Amino acid sequence: MEVGICKQDMLQKKKNAVLVDGVILNGPIMDSKAGEKFVEEACKIIMEEVIQKANDVTEKVCEWRAPETLKKILDLEMRDTGESHQKLLQLCQDVIQYSVKTSHPRFFNQLYAGIDYYSLVARFITEALNPSVYTYEVSPVFLLVEETVIKKMIEFIGWEEGDGIFNPGGSVSNMYAMNLARYKFCPEIKEKGLSSLPRLVLFTSEECHYSMKKAASFLGIGTENVYFIKTDERGKMIPEELEKQVQRARKEGSAPFLVCATAGTTVLGAFDPLDEIADICEKHGLWLHVDASWGGSALISRKHCRLLHGIHRADSVAWNPHKMLLAGIQCCALLVKDNSGLLKKCYSAKAAYLFQQDKFYDVSYDTGDKSIQCSRRPDAFKFWLMWKALGTTGLEERVNRALALARYLVEEIKKREGFQLLLEPEYANVCFWYIPPSLRKMEDGPEFWQKLHEILQFSASQAFGLCSARSESHDEAVQF
Amino acid sequence: MEVGICKQDMLQKKKNAVLVDGVILNGPIMDSKAGEKFVEEACKIIMEEVIQKANDVTEKVCEWRAPETLKKILDLEMRDTGESHQKLLQLCQDVIQYSVKTSHPRFFNQLYAGIDYYSLVARFITEALNPSVYTYEVSPVFLLVEETVIKKMIEFIGWEEGDGIFNPGGSVSNMYAMNLARYKFCPEIKEKGLSSLPRLVLFTSEECHYSMKKAASFLGIGTENVYFIKTDERGKMIPEELEKQVQRARKEGSAPFLVCATAGTTVLGAFDPLDEIADICEKHGLWLHVDASWGGSALISRKHCRLLHGIHRADSVAWNPHKMLLAGIQCCALLVKDNSGLLKKCYSAKAAYLFQQDKFYDVSYDTGDKSIQCSRRPDAFKFWLMWKALGTTGLEERVNRALALARYLVEEIKKREGFQLLLEPEYANVCFWYIPPSLRKMEDGPEFWQKLHEILQFSASQAFGLCSARSESHDEAVQF
Repeated sequence: MEVGICKQDMLQKKKNAVLVDGVILNGPIMDSKAGEKFVEEACKIIMEEVIQKANDVTEKVCEWRAPETLKKILDLEMRDTGESHQKLLQLCQDVIQYSVKTSHPRFFNQLYAGIDYYSLVARFITEALNPSVYTYEVSPVFLLVEETVIKKMIEFIGWEEGDGIFNPGGSVSNMYAMNLARYKFCPEIKEKGLSSLPRLVLFTSEECHYSMKKAASFLGIGTENVYFIKTDERGKMIPEELEKQVQRARKEGSAPFLVCATAGTTVLGAFDPLDEIADICEKHGLWLHVDASWGGSALISRKHCRLLHGIHRADSVAWNPHKMLLAGIQCCALLVKDNSGLLKKCYSAKAAYLFQQDKFYDVSYDTGDKSIQCSRRPDAFKFWLMWKALGTTGLEERVNRALALARYLVEEIKKREGFQLLLEPEYANVCFWYIPPSLRKMEDGPEFWQKLHEILQFSASQAFGLCSARSESHDEAVQF
Repeated sequence: MEVGICKQDMLQKKKNAVLVDGVILNGPIMDSKAGEKFVEEACKIIMEEVIQKANDVTEKVCEWRAPETLKKILDLEMRDTGESHQKLLQLCQDVIQYSVKTSHPRFFNQLYAGIDYYSLVARFITEALNPSVYTYEVSPVFLLVEETVIKKMIEFIGWEEGDGIFNPGGSVSNMYAMNLARYKFCPEIKEKGLSSLPRLVLFTSEECHYSMKKAASFLGIGTENVYFIKTDERGKMIPEELEKQVQRARKEGSAPFLVCATAGTTVLGAFDPLDEIADICEKHGLWLHVDASWGGSALISRKHCRLLHGIHRADSVAWNPHKMLLAGIQCCALLVKDNSGLLKKCYSAKAAYLFQQDKFYDVSYDTGDKSIQCSRRPDAFKFWLMWKALGTTGLEERVNRALALARYLVEEIKKREGFQLLLEPEYANVCFWYIPPSLRKMEDGPEFWQKLHEILQFSASQAFGLCSARSESHDEAVQF
């Protein structure tokens, strides 16, 4: 271990050494110069191997290895004694080499759309400062930044005022909303729990994100009490079906309390008709949550914000700037229309050791009592720095570009033999089949679909094989 | 905006330009060279202003400003057009200047104990690669690292096998455990919810972390169904009181299902007697969760691990390496003794679009169905790289040093007039009063405590005032 310092040396150097329980208390724990040098050298590797190669299509997306092989390559074991800086830097190289380059222009997966240099810098600052955003005295800058970002996001939703909190993901945002709606419906649940209460029921479309089921089970509501509403051929919730299900729930004697609409479904990218759903919510006194984790970013685009028409009528909205806007994982806000302190009332535990009410500054800046977490990362900051750098116009261009690319892909699919578009997309999700030549003349039916599935399976594993072979330089018209 | 590229320029340069919906699709979104340069310049600032100053006592802990003042200093507003790189770098400088330096040797707050260069490098790598740890094909390295780290942590707990998941905080770990225990008690709750079920009751000490109440309310159990068990004069749960409360709950007809013991309480640093509590849990068939978020790190020390004697009998353990071990916020594991897939059974939503069962590799490496999150950060990685660098021995030294420092502080308090030790500490928490000269001869009573409180209030705001004045270089024997 290079950084360790020999105790004998230290004792000789420092006459006033304080030894307690065999530990020398004064003097540095580690050689900070060596530590800084290590950080510098590692940053050089990160710069060269990750950041400078981020946009380079001649690089590999991933040096694919199966789990058992990768285990043998990486020296994973943690031992009693530490490794040298040289060995550690090699380890960092290996970690980078065998990791997926999520910023690569040819990496197609949920969430990713390239590198953003500004949010990256914000994230480096965050890691170096290592803050926790629960009280103003520990995170003055980051709490003000979060407040500013939340206000701005609320503006785009179209509320006059509101509240909100950044949290670890869209799934967690949806849980927050579900719990808030339940608290609003019956504040006693916070103390009494659900036992002996009528059965709570919530509604969401059959195309919703799976976090709805996770949330219902986590919160003690139960997945069976999530009533899935039929969608139309484009994957949008059918309002008439929602109305029917609410009435059915009432007849059953259960207690409907929440509708979760989706703005940008996971698979089809469909947007539920928010305005019509809001009418039903108003009529029945139901909380309207919009899971806009994926679709929320369209609000930034004057051209595409109409996709979320009616969102200003929602009681809460989940919106993840870490997706289409590239703010880096994780950057997720739950936004709440209520501005009377509902978030705090619902989540407070009033821990005296952290959230004293008699501090020497305005404690309304402390957010700890709005959160299910204690320590919390300043995820708003990366979105803020990116927004400062690009301006609203720059963010808008990102959204417009993503949707234009999807449009282009659709046209290309239509032109090419063997490609079959599933439906005209509303958003950036383009669903299509590739039919290999051997199946193109085959009749549609169970046998056709089984064969197609088998071939696609095989192609996926082949594709991963191909990732390992260095791809040659291409100068294609468009890289998706 | 320096990085933006003029459309006209691009069209001229590229004859094959593809224009869709007013967006040029081919060609870079931003000038990557300028982006890289920005990252390099920002990294230089981070290196100079944060990392190189991390251990320097002559630097300020915080340039304190009240919220309204700080808002005026920082240019928080996000505008339509972006800012120049020069302005952005100045912003980064300001953010750093007015943030609390949590690694500063004189920063005393929950969680923090200085800078660790290795975990910092791991975090920089993570941010640059921007992974999400849900499936092996997206995060091959980080999932294997998490598996390795969890196995190693389980070894230190003393289980023969087990499972686990890194998640965003000790509070969330405790929620996971509470929900797991509930699922184990009655698997039907996942689908049916709690309505019409008997009242579930859990037990924890009155000195427990506030996340227990938050979890009980979030999960629909209700805070009133958390039975707080009396503690002895050192803040430890009294086993006889636990036994009484379990019997009381049974007599009431409610359903006890869980005991949450604490290893290292928030205020006093007390360790509940795990062995005796485990006996009671066994007798009554209750799940034993140990919240070792704070105290878990003592397991690494051969000298101090006896504090957690009996922890191997727990069903689940929360342990945060981001505290005493310095792994950087957040780094928190929930560890589960069960190895029959309980974590997956309890949390799965079986989303077909992510967690296909017919992939070309062993899908048991996919962790998405063990988590309440969808995208998830690779927090195990920073702990792993730090462990590789320091070895178990180096981590052990950190724990031993922290406890030796606490020991030293206790002795200093005893020596000095006006300081009053509350109790002999078990761990690194040292609780004491400072009695100013004017109150030292006053009789103990309500008036005394009110005056003391007023003075401490005033001192706290003065201390923040002092932070702003540059402290001079000191060469004290020990810096806490």
